[in-house]
Amino acid sequence: MPRAPKLTPNERAAALADLGGWKQAENRDAIARTFRFDGFGAAFGFMTRVALKAEAMDHHPEWRNVYDKVEVVLTTHDAGGLTRLDVEMAAFMDATAAATGHRE
Amino acid sequence: MPRAPKLTPNERAAALADLGGWKQAENRDAIARTFRFDGFGAAFGFMTRVALKAEAMDHHPEWRNVYDKVEVVLTTHDAGGLTRLDVEMAAFMDATAAATGHRE
Repeated sequence: MPRAPKLTPNERAAALADLGGWKQAENRDAIARTFRFDGFGAAFGFMTRVALKAEAMDHHPEWRNVYDKVEVVLTTHDAGGLTRLDVEMAAFMDATAAATGHRE
Repeated sequence: MPRAPKLTPNERAAALADLGGWKQAENRDAIARTFRFDGFGAAFGFMTRVALKAEAMDHHPEWRNVYDKVEVVLTTHDAGGLTRLDVEMAAFMDATAAATGHRE
């Protein structure tokens, strides 16, 4: 049994409206955002803070890093789609990126 | 001017023979390997050690992480292809993964 149920269509719409920078991922029940930082050190600093949070939540992102860019996809694998865990992680990433001085 | 010249075909063949777990990336002058670890903590521990090395070398991987898996592509962007920097980084990753207890 998943730890969190999939969001209803209304809950999903409300969550995406609150999370300004995130969009629906293509062909998946998931959300995606690309962050860009002031170099690799800032990008990996962001990833390190998020990694600690991910372990604490036991909820981990799919992510790709190339130098100053971090591409993130969030979904809840054991629920087969988007849950409140993804919304919580997305909000944490937004706050952490803002605190780390991301550029976009 | 790039910091390191592209490898010659002979140098490339010799390097790939030495780096057992790496293969030619598809449609790019690059090499690729997927590492799998005993959970996210081990995978991100590996990435952290590699990140410090990458900053010291000023030579950074393209990589994607999903839980216990780290997919890596190495190439030298300013040389437009594979150089000794990629071979050095690949060897460092292999040694670090071995020391971090990777599973494959």
